[in-house]
Amino acid sequence: MKAEIVTIGSELLLGQIVDTNASYLAAELAALGIDMHFKTTVGDNWFRVQHALSQALNRADVVLTSGGLGPTMDDLTREAAASVFGRPLLLDQTALEDLEEFFRRRGRVMTENNRKQAHLPKGSIVIRNNWGTAPGFILEDGPRTLACLPGVPTELKGMFHAAVAPYLVKKRGEGSVIVSRTLHFSGIGESALEDAVKDILAEQTNPTVAPYASAGHVKLRITAKAENQAVCEALIQPMEDRLVSRLEPYFLGVNGATLEGAVGDLLQKRQATVAVAESCTGGLIGHRLTNTPGSSAYFSCGFITYSNEAKKRYLGVPGSTLQEHGAVSEATARSMANGVRKAAGTTWGLAVTGIAGPAGGSAAKPVGTVHLCAAGPDGACHEEHFFRGERLQIKERSAQAALDLLRRSLQKNVEEHRV
Amino acid sequence: MKAEIVTIGSELLLGQIVDTNASYLAAELAALGIDMHFKTTVGDNWFRVQHALSQALNRADVVLTSGGLGPTMDDLTREAAASVFGRPLLLDQTALEDLEEFFRRRGRVMTENNRKQAHLPKGSIVIRNNWGTAPGFILEDGPRTLACLPGVPTELKGMFHAAVAPYLVKKRGEGSVIVSRTLHFSGIGESALEDAVKDILAEQTNPTVAPYASAGHVKLRITAKAENQAVCEALIQPMEDRLVSRLEPYFLGVNGATLEGAVGDLLQKRQATVAVAESCTGGLIGHRLTNTPGSSAYFSCGFITYSNEAKKRYLGVPGSTLQEHGAVSEATARSMANGVRKAAGTTWGLAVTGIAGPAGGSAAKPVGTVHLCAAGPDGACHEEHFFRGERLQIKERSAQAALDLLRRSLQKNVEEHRV
Repeated sequence: MKAEIVTIGSELLLGQIVDTNASYLAAELAALGIDMHFKTTVGDNWFRVQHALSQALNRADVVLTSGGLGPTMDDLTREAAASVFGRPLLLDQTALEDLEEFFRRRGRVMTENNRKQAHLPKGSIVIRNNWGTAPGFILEDGPRTLACLPGVPTELKGMFHAAVAPYLVKKRGEGSVIVSRTLHFSGIGESALEDAVKDILAEQTNPTVAPYASAGHVKLRITAKAENQAVCEALIQPMEDRLVSRLEPYFLGVNGATLEGAVGDLLQKRQATVAVAESCTGGLIGHRLTNTPGSSAYFSCGFITYSNEAKKRYLGVPGSTLQEHGAVSEATARSMANGVRKAAGTTWGLAVTGIAGPAGGSAAKPVGTVHLCAAGPDGACHEEHFFRGERLQIKERSAQAALDLLRRSLQKNVEEHRV
Repeated sequence: MKAEIVTIGSELLLGQIVDTNASYLAAELAALGIDMHFKTTVGDNWFRVQHALSQALNRADVVLTSGGLGPTMDDLTREAAASVFGRPLLLDQTALEDLEEFFRRRGRVMTENNRKQAHLPKGSIVIRNNWGTAPGFILEDGPRTLACLPGVPTELKGMFHAAVAPYLVKKRGEGSVIVSRTLHFSGIGESALEDAVKDILAEQTNPTVAPYASAGHVKLRITAKAENQAVCEALIQPMEDRLVSRLEPYFLGVNGATLEGAVGDLLQKRQATVAVAESCTGGLIGHRLTNTPGSSAYFSCGFITYSNEAKKRYLGVPGSTLQEHGAVSEATARSMANGVRKAAGTTWGLAVTGIAGPAGGSAAKPVGTVHLCAAGPDGACHEEHFFRGERLQIKERSAQAALDLLRRSLQKNVEEHRV
């Protein structure tokens, strides 16, 4: 069974709101194992809504719409659906009573334009709305099915779950379920990752494997299709093991795993603690580490030492180091990491110093030059990076690289510990 | 000029990510006064991407796409665009050099599949990518124009702003010019702001005024339509003055003004400096303050004092205060703010302590309880807040409220100074 989604509303075309209904419906359809090839958004215009509905109905077995069922003049979905199916709009008594009841219970008077919401295309399967006023409806015509839901997210979700999902499952008859699992990685680029598993990507059938990247964080999504959840999981597991065994050093975890979370887990495994010394990242590393609930177990404190004065006073960076090598240098990064570890009395110290720009760069040290250091029980590890982009991206990439340096240092440490 | 947007990526059809690129592009096109009738989303499938592109190009003058420009096998936008325009893909030297430079700067090896990103349809206007790897391109064929951008939001936004927007403005040529100016506010809710100017919103014609809200930050966008830039500006200015005079205490500035930027300006006006003491925000306030270029002029340092031990040691919070009132209390917030001001020797000290959750709440102090204090030359100002939401939202709302408390304290201070 193939489905399409048509979301209706000029505010969507003006970018005034993000189309969360479309992503909700898309995810629900995927979970039901229903394929989706196109998603269309159209404004509150009678002809264009008609055009979008006909087009979708010609490509798909089932079309779901959101929006345009309200009482106002620019709510046109009922009219457009009726005309595409060549049916008249008729007053539905149950729908009208539900509306009257809705207003009665709120002690409000039902204005005339609300009656409009109870006029549905002839032959509609009415979807009652227990969350608001506009009823939804399902229209069938031979192989074509159209299900129209209101645009208010709580109403759309409630009505999809209560009426549309069961209807679709019944219509599809026995069929397949889709289950996805996402594997998260860091410290490797999207293309290097794809390179490492390209034979698997080439031979994939069921489950399928697809790579994604977002801000220094790459993912592989495994998707299995089978008659039930258990069989899907059984198809996914060996593929996950196979991918992880190849990419172990970069693997953060599954379904929503984060770099800061992986670092936290490693710290707790070692009963270790960390303190951070941030210059160019200005607190972003501390912010990310403390986004993980329970981080107080291993994160004790951080110093945002923006000025040289602060680097000296709180981290004990020698004035001579700053003078000879400059604030953005390996020597300063090492001194900051060891200094914060000593000052805070933690197992690990993580330091970043760099030039986020736009000013402050030089030929020798261009904007984007960043020095990282992770100091631990077995010594300190330094990295120099040259990041491109604007100030905020350089800060974000620096924080990402610093957390990954700590992750790798901890991992190495954990493995040495295992031996 | 009529435009359409085609967003490309199976993850969009599976509902795994919300399509924020589409809403961003839609809002930008609206601001340029370019009409949009349809928005389509299609998966990473060669035939369907082609179908969606041809269809959009038959309905619109300009089609913008996002996604499918990466190095992996399922990135197909270049190929589909080339075939729709009947052009070959050619290696673009500049694009290749940019790519090689990108990897060189990072000390990484460019894998073979990355070269693919430098192969663009013959006759493309190349859009350089200063934020990542994949170049974009613009293709023209008689009246039809196609502009393809990567799916990574920072790259898409940067490239749209730098290359596509100017191109579209030029293409639209003479005829009405549209100029928008956005006024930024904080410390007031969207509905309260709308209420304060609802008469203006009701009578607006040219320029138009539209309110927008996003995460504790509300905006009014003034859009004027006229024969040239100068006339537009002349229409906008009196409206800006009128709106600002009503909302002065909340006004941050125009076009991309930020709360942290407004705070920075006020600090520089006073030749004042600030240091932060962060508990539940974990460094987010320092991160935001240092997102403003040149912030080193007024931001000296910050302490992320997550543990009580750190609050005592670095901020001099008395153990008795922590014992009697708890770490999340007015007394502790005041002590942290005065303490960090003293320790860092700055004009101002800004402190936050609270419960971000999900654990750590109690009947007396539920999750979301946050105490803020801004200590300055004329004393300290305290606020208690109860924020709803998840851990990250509570951190973000706390940082927003803390920065706004400092802004209002500084403003008051500046005005007293004027008198």
